[in-house]
Amino acid sequence: MHTDESIPDVIKQKAMKATHKALCKHGYADLTMKKIADESDRCKSTFHYHYDTKENLLVNFIQYLLEGFEERMIPETDDPLKELNGFIDRMLFGLSDEETTESFHTALLEIRSQAPYNEKFREQITKNDEYILQITTNIIQEGIEKGTFKDTDPKNTAIVLLSAIDGARARQISTDRRATEELRTALDWILDELIVE
Amino acid sequence: MHTDESIPDVIKQKAMKATHKALCKHGYADLTMKKIADESDRCKSTFHYHYDTKENLLVNFIQYLLEGFEERMIPETDDPLKELNGFIDRMLFGLSDEETTESFHTALLEIRSQAPYNEKFREQITKNDEYILQITTNIIQEGIEKGTFKDTDPKNTAIVLLSAIDGARARQISTDRRATEELRTALDWILDELIVE
Repeated sequence: MHTDESIPDVIKQKAMKATHKALCKHGYADLTMKKIADESDRCKSTFHYHYDTKENLLVNFIQYLLEGFEERMIPETDDPLKELNGFIDRMLFGLSDEETTESFHTALLEIRSQAPYNEKFREQITKNDEYILQITTNIIQEGIEKGTFKDTDPKNTAIVLLSAIDGARARQISTDRRATEELRTALDWILDELIVE
Repeated sequence: MHTDESIPDVIKQKAMKATHKALCKHGYADLTMKKIADESDRCKSTFHYHYDTKENLLVNFIQYLLEGFEERMIPETDDPLKELNGFIDRMLFGLSDEETTESFHTALLEIRSQAPYNEKFREQITKNDEYILQITTNIIQEGIEKGTFKDTDPKNTAIVLLSAIDGARARQISTDRRATEELRTALDWILDELIVE
């Protein structure tokens, strides 16, 4: 199996973008290497050559989600509350239109639901979760140091926030409720009580 | 298709218990009517006769999860904080041993991940979510009326709590982290700050 480092960057970018598109279009259960390749200008055998299996390509894709994560998901501002609120919005509502965001969250939930049976998925999802927890803890820690946030426990606050965001994203796509909007409203109130000095 | 009311109670109980066992044992993706029947003393055709399809049996099963939910999940006590903490514990850690709870949560996450593609699942999961949200809101409302809890917004508090519980259950089975224990610790601290008078 080729490791990620051995894959030319141009191929990697094409593979990752095609995987993203194919996941949004077909979901996880119906995904094939053919369908992924169809979203790029390369053929299936190129992706097989570099990534070997679909499973390995997907593990690389989960890892790829972290590339540029901070730049993409955290707005640049000196105000810790604006930073935290912008981050929460992007985690709940995504960066693209609602339909694309929901299709993508649907595919991610399917991958997550397979992780109990798939050690490689589980390993990479664990790394992603730990990374995102660290980032979120840092935002809160910084807000405390600047005196914008109350002197709370940054890690515990981050755990509750991220768990709630995950849960609401799952409810948004698996129920007919507007779960992400509901959580956003509830968090406004919670942050006001709990965090803002 | 036979409606739920037309099914004799003895069959229903056998079908629901067998579905629970089969989901824990095989997960959702590999579930068949045969595997469900194998967990009971009835044969496959009995379940087909009463429930028609596997999908319909599963919708009935999701509905069945709410039967006796309050009695099962909310401890009997006059202390609203003990009531809320007991409820959170049962939602996070289940009522049986850890392995059974995790297998069951794994199957539920798989069903949830299919709900975006399955209107009947989504409809029933929506009803379950709304019911559990109402119950949780009531616990908090009661605590406020008794003066044990601060005068918070009960529904918003319930939304954050339940979303976080859902997210932690998903992380518990899809990562190598002890996500439910982590959330329990974080919630202890949050409840102390936010809710307890």
